[in-house]
Amino acid sequence: MNTVPLKKVTIISEAVLEPEILRMVKELGARGYTTVQARGEGSRGVRASEWEGHNVMVEVLVDAATADRILGHVAEHYFEHYAVVAYLTDVRVVRGGKYTA
Amino acid sequence: MNTVPLKKVTIISEAVLEPEILRMVKELGARGYTTVQARGEGSRGVRASEWEGHNVMVEVLVDAATADRILGHVAEHYFEHYAVVAYLTDVRVVRGGKYTA
Amino acid sequence: MNTVPLKKVTIISEAVLEPEILRMVKELGARGYTTVQARGEGSRGVRASEWEGHNVMVEVLVDAATADRILGHVAEHYFEHYAVVAYLTDVRVVRGGKYTA
Repeated sequence: MNTVPLKKVTIISEAVLEPEILRMVKELGARGYTTVQARGEGSRGVRASEWEGHNVMVEVLVDAATADRILGHVAEHYFEHYAVVAYLTDVRVVRGGKYTA
Repeated sequence: MNTVPLKKVTIISEAVLEPEILRMVKELGARGYTTVQARGEGSRGVRASEWEGHNVMVEVLVDAATADRILGHVAEHYFEHYAVVAYLTDVRVVRGGKYTA
Repeated sequence: MNTVPLKKVTIISEAVLEPEILRMVKELGARGYTTVQARGEGSRGVRASEWEGHNVMVEVLVDAATADRILGHVAEHYFEHYAVVAYLTDVRVVRGGKYTA
């Protein structure tokens, strides 16, 4: 089966950030997204404040350059003020050519 | 910890396709599955129609040959008529021997 | 974008095990977790009993040593009595230094 190597970017945040994250990933080049309701707990953010509650997990399939732009934006704009987790996974996507810019 | 390298196949589709996908992955050799409710948006399918709504994410842990059969089936039967995303991730599974044919 | 290679440990189990799993991953070194509601079916466990129902998917981002301890605990304490799936995925995490012991 012919597949294309891409990056899956996963961003987990407080649910209130979801609209902002979806707008951002599309502006930075993602052609689509999947969101899943989640719960979580962690010590994250500048003051390492403890938090627990309703979260959202946003996943996008993008090329490496787009993944880098998205993670850079997350690090620069969200980490200081919000509880956010962001990571990359290598995946191989069927008809992956549709996901690149 | 002893783990076995396997493929995780993730299929994201409109929720209406879930029963068909679950039947298919079992017929093609998956020993189990996990499903998660999701939402999404994307430009996919022959007419690149925009869609947004209730989706399902189906995940199965299988050997490489089974993963290939499942992705081949998805590409051949679903991509033309449905909004579907399908991709592979390399994983290492505890007691992974149970998942192979 | 600067990222740190970590392991994502995914544990899928019957929902009744969730509090026990969350306590265990924190005791073994995870700094946080994400949980997602799931459904599933599989033949797992000592009697290969068939099961279908409400599950929980727990994900933690940890270093390789912590991942190994968590998977070892799952294999030793849960597999005999519960329907549990556990696997590792390699990921690259933004500000990943926060997740290590």
